[in-house]
Amino acid sequence: MSGIAPWIDGGQVPLKRVPGEPVSIRADVFADGHDLVAAAVRWRHQDDGEWSSTAMTALGNDRFQGTFTVERPGTYRVTIRATIDRLATWARAVRAKLAAGQDVRLDLAEGAELISAAESRASGDDRTALRQWHRAVSQMAEMLTYDTSPSGTSPPRSTSPPRSTSPPRSTDPAQSASPARSTDPAPRSAACHPPTPDAVVGLVDDHELHAVAARYPDLEVATTVDAATVLVERPLAGCCSWYELFPRSASPDPTRPGTLADVVDRLPYVAGLGFDVLYLPPIHPIGTTNRKGRDNSPVAEPGDPGSPWAIGSPQGGHDAVHPELGTVRDLRRLVDAAREHGIEVALDLAWQCSPDHPWVTEHPQWFRRRADGSIAHAENPPKRYEDVVPFDFETDDWRSLWEALADVVRFWIAQGIGVFRVDNPHTKPLRFWEWLIATVRSEAPEVIWLAEAFTRPRVMEHLAKAGFSQSYTYFTWRNAKWEIEQYLTELTGTDLAEYFRPNFWPNTPDILPEVLQVGGRGAFVARLVLAAMASATYGIYGPVFELQEHEPRPGAEEYAGSEKYEIRHWNLEDPTSLAPVVARVNAARRVHPALRHNRTLRLQRVDNDYLVAFTKTAITDDGADVVLTVVNLDTRYPQSGWVDLDVDLLGLGPGTPLHAHDLLTDARYEWNGPHNYVALDPTVMPAHVLHLQRAVSHP
Amino acid sequence: MSGIAPWIDGGQVPLKRVPGEPVSIRADVFADGHDLVAAAVRWRHQDDGEWSSTAMTALGNDRFQGTFTVERPGTYRVTIRATIDRLATWARAVRAKLAAGQDVRLDLAEGAELISAAESRASGDDRTALRQWHRAVSQMAEMLTYDTSPSGTSPPRSTSPPRSTSPPRSTDPAQSASPARSTDPAPRSAACHPPTPDAVVGLVDDHELHAVAARYPDLEVATTVDAATVLVERPLAGCCSWYELFPRSASPDPTRPGTLADVVDRLPYVAGLGFDVLYLPPIHPIGTTNRKGRDNSPVAEPGDPGSPWAIGSPQGGHDAVHPELGTVRDLRRLVDAAREHGIEVALDLAWQCSPDHPWVTEHPQWFRRRADGSIAHAENPPKRYEDVVPFDFETDDWRSLWEALADVVRFWIAQGIGVFRVDNPHTKPLRFWEWLIATVRSEAPEVIWLAEAFTRPRVMEHLAKAGFSQSYTYFTWRNAKWEIEQYLTELTGTDLAEYFRPNFWPNTPDILPEVLQVGGRGAFVARLVLAAMASATYGIYGPVFELQEHEPRPGAEEYAGSEKYEIRHWNLEDPTSLAPVVARVNAARRVHPALRHNRTLRLQRVDNDYLVAFTKTAITDDGADVVLTVVNLDTRYPQSGWVDLDVDLLGLGPGTPLHAHDLLTDARYEWNGPHNYVALDPTVMPAHVLHLQRAVSHP
Repeated sequence: MSGIAPWIDGGQVPLKRVPGEPVSIRADVFADGHDLVAAAVRWRHQDDGEWSSTAMTALGNDRFQGTFTVERPGTYRVTIRATIDRLATWARAVRAKLAAGQDVRLDLAEGAELISAAESRASGDDRTALRQWHRAVSQMAEMLTYDTSPSGTSPPRSTSPPRSTSPPRSTDPAQSASPARSTDPAPRSAACHPPTPDAVVGLVDDHELHAVAARYPDLEVATTVDAATVLVERPLAGCCSWYELFPRSASPDPTRPGTLADVVDRLPYVAGLGFDVLYLPPIHPIGTTNRKGRDNSPVAEPGDPGSPWAIGSPQGGHDAVHPELGTVRDLRRLVDAAREHGIEVALDLAWQCSPDHPWVTEHPQWFRRRADGSIAHAENPPKRYEDVVPFDFETDDWRSLWEALADVVRFWIAQGIGVFRVDNPHTKPLRFWEWLIATVRSEAPEVIWLAEAFTRPRVMEHLAKAGFSQSYTYFTWRNAKWEIEQYLTELTGTDLAEYFRPNFWPNTPDILPEVLQVGGRGAFVARLVLAAMASATYGIYGPVFELQEHEPRPGAEEYAGSEKYEIRHWNLEDPTSLAPVVARVNAARRVHPALRHNRTLRLQRVDNDYLVAFTKTAITDDGADVVLTVVNLDTRYPQSGWVDLDVDLLGLGPGTPLHAHDLLTDARYEWNGPHNYVALDPTVMPAHVLHLQRAVSHP
Repeated sequence: MSGIAPWIDGGQVPLKRVPGEPVSIRADVFADGHDLVAAAVRWRHQDDGEWSSTAMTALGNDRFQGTFTVERPGTYRVTIRATIDRLATWARAVRAKLAAGQDVRLDLAEGAELISAAESRASGDDRTALRQWHRAVSQMAEMLTYDTSPSGTSPPRSTSPPRSTSPPRSTDPAQSASPARSTDPAPRSAACHPPTPDAVVGLVDDHELHAVAARYPDLEVATTVDAATVLVERPLAGCCSWYELFPRSASPDPTRPGTLADVVDRLPYVAGLGFDVLYLPPIHPIGTTNRKGRDNSPVAEPGDPGSPWAIGSPQGGHDAVHPELGTVRDLRRLVDAAREHGIEVALDLAWQCSPDHPWVTEHPQWFRRRADGSIAHAENPPKRYEDVVPFDFETDDWRSLWEALADVVRFWIAQGIGVFRVDNPHTKPLRFWEWLIATVRSEAPEVIWLAEAFTRPRVMEHLAKAGFSQSYTYFTWRNAKWEIEQYLTELTGTDLAEYFRPNFWPNTPDILPEVLQVGGRGAFVARLVLAAMASATYGIYGPVFELQEHEPRPGAEEYAGSEKYEIRHWNLEDPTSLAPVVARVNAARRVHPALRHNRTLRLQRVDNDYLVAFTKTAITDDGADVVLTVVNLDTRYPQSGWVDLDVDLLGLGPGTPLHAHDLLTDARYEWNGPHNYVALDPTVMPAHVLHLQRAVSHP
């Protein structure tokens, strides 16, 4: 056996799934010589005592594939068991010899022995049935023996043979008790007429015989290899929509900062937009030493609130709530209230401190010192982050540091938090994440981890391998059609699809991409639709997104007047808000199972380089749910073109009529098959999200 | 670290090489955060105590590659060692800070500590040199400290800085004995002038400092992983030309069969053709039970000699010589005589018996019995091989059988045989081959194993993985240009190139392919040139090849009047013999190092689907040896077209004049660069084998 796929880093990396998703395993299975082989995928959930099994099917050229569906969160072990299928090899030989007019008497006797061996491994009804087949094959061998004509070299051919010679399934206990090797001389057909070749073939090829015997393979010639482990997380890990907001900007009163209680009041709005996850930037006390001012100024003015990522002050550290936001109890109230709206609250894990964090004095050994004894602040030369000091994860006292950080996670889990967004995980040791996520997952398997790493591809992949449930991506900067198509192919059509769950964000507090700076309303809608339709997990940073904030800090991708450094107030009633569009997008995701996974994404051809099109189909229900997304990437001008749908999508013939229902505009189109014209104006609506159905209904 | 390549079956399969060949290892190497990494490939021959090492170079996107050359037969272990390059990371930070006008005083002090740490790991001159660099950097830090001007934020810029500040290599023992952390207050330049930023950069970027320090990495932050093992066989395993002949047809006297002594007399002929390996089909006694007659007739006539593969008679088995061929002593004489001609004799290992083999009665438990107690003959239904009985490799007595077979190999090795062609290895257990080859290789590492398996791709690959030095291929049936190009790409451009050495045969005693049946002389030459030029190991079955025997048994690929079943006599003096062409082809292979490997093979574009073209270059000597092969695949008509050579081949510019010397015809052409016209007439000479040289000579 070789060539197992998927096979991430030598099978060491678990495949990621949510309940209901399929796992397909492929391998080359072969034996020496001409023997036929059989292979099965076997799997076992961590809580199961028994293995389940499904036969692998031959894809040709010694390649086999087997697929099963995971059903419960937890870890599955998956193996491949390959055996030599002696019975199928025997049946093939008998067929070939009969076709060449050769004697098969000895072969039948040998087949009877094979069936007898399977019988001895079987139990219950199967054992009884195999015993009867054994008897039937033995008898046929004897009848050929009685035949004195040279039937071995030129057997008579019957024109209307009894094709099925399966013995009836008997549950007669008396018959079951008969000896396995029956010497019953009474033949099943008249002894004076030897069986025809077709009758022999009918018996040795009996489908049910082979199916029953295959359940009791000869394990002496079996090889079992580990193929994979599968980490199954709860459904939210595979499909969710995130909404990020700064609580201190959530005040309805422009004269005071927002609080966690204000966020409770904001919940109906967020739920109305249709989001599942409400993510809050760090809610902890903020340091004052080297506090940053507005627009990342190195000097804060009086009253500047500082960056929430400069965590810790005399009022507390990572397990405290900023007094201006409220209390830990307020957070629990928010968590509970959110749950009533079907929303989970996600917190930010930013493993760094302000110089005023209590740990800086309590645990000075957790921080790196400069040559002059001063504490090292964060830097990425020439960039300096004087308001932040990083942990020294490789300190001699690393065990107590790592445990303290795990305790922070445990603390917030105890407050009801089940989703964490992790800040810049790529600047901390990969081994730390492996340890932290495994440790917490063993205690709280429901926790979902999102890696906010915008870094090199191999490092982002490694974080996903280390256990993160979801990952930020390069989507934010993929704008051209070829870039988008290439990236979607990479994410859904390579090994990445097995372990890296992309989370698409059109914007973040750190990133106002150029397309949103200059593209206008059409760009916001296009990016929203692309993110939400292409990726089962996506998010926006609001309310700046739906309010289409687009002024950057000069020469930067950051927002001017960024909420990272100041408190803002937002007019959610702005009539130009994209809130209604966001709500329709999220409603489509809730209604259509096709949009809950990425593995069925297929690019569709459009003859216009500004139009990108892709479909998704449901992984269950025979793919009956089909959604086609078409987006105009030109933020200024209308674009039109012809979409060519895969003809095997929906099993479409060239003239099959289709209903296309636009989930964004509620428009309905009648299409005559897979070749269709689309036109999209960015100033009106730059995208179609079309639910496709065959117009011809099946009764 | 991840993505190691090559990585055959999880690194379990040794890469195959011969002395002088390169091994290139690639891997993704990365660390968390922004630290720079360094990686080295390390290797150790089984007899070496020490590891050798070469730095890997960055290919971009965190991918690194390192290459070394194997020098001796045996097994090499290869590892990759990755470290965080703290000194390079430090130097980059200092550069960035200086460029931004920031203070680097503490950074220099910290760099001095890094250098001091490297110094403590170093020895000899390197230690002395690092001590001096340490002192220089410390002094520079102190000089920046003395500076009371705000040079930290706006350092003066010098227009002509002393770029190199490397301390001289000192071997002064007194200086070596000075303390590592020098407190010598005497600065190296005037203390009153602080060093310029350029002087600082010159010191921290000093190439020699980094090169020396890199030899003493901080192993506390190093990761070492096994990357590969490399099996290095003797040169003949990587490059040889085989000539197969039936000794019993080697008689110069048509009235009597040939003998091993006749083969000795045939040696000058074989040497004249230029072959390295003379391969004899089985030379053992032949059974009489169910002996096959001429043209594979199921009944032998009196006087029919039987198939040499029906091994064993009362006269002996696998360790005996057929009395009509001679004695074991005659074989030794042949081996010795051949060696004088630069030829090695290869024997056939065919693990099967005639029913008359002594083992059939001595060790009946080594054979499979039918249901009626009879011994099972070989079959592949409906094909029957009644003159042969196979071993039951899975008999309960398998240990004694396997050892007996190993003893056969040992016996022939003791007679001077160092090359074996193994008959149908794919019909014996793969594990048996792993065991046999490993066992014999541990005793006689010089032995070369050729697998004669024409079967499915995965099985052929697995035999190569199991240890076979060379493998028969599908070349025999690859005739169209696209087939040939695809197959050469697969063999030389994929993982196969690492462990599967193809041996190309235009014909064998079992296979007279259709192209030779109908293609005439041009087809014989074209297939010969393709085999010998595309593959460093190839062979022909003669003298039928050079005499262009091409009559098949009706409806078959086998030869009519096959030597497998009868004794033939050949007229080597036939004036139409291709012997002179064969001799020229083999002479070209001997003269040109480019033709001794497959890994430099590159397909070249020709605008005619009947013309296939490829180049090979020498792996050493900067690729100075270049041979271009062009073959006309049309066996009936002349074909012409334009060949487009890679412009980077020989570093050719578009107008560079070239000498092209045809090694087959001795014709010489002057070419003006890479774009050239060729015309080949199959009735004259269907191929060019062109040695290319730049016409402009370099002094």
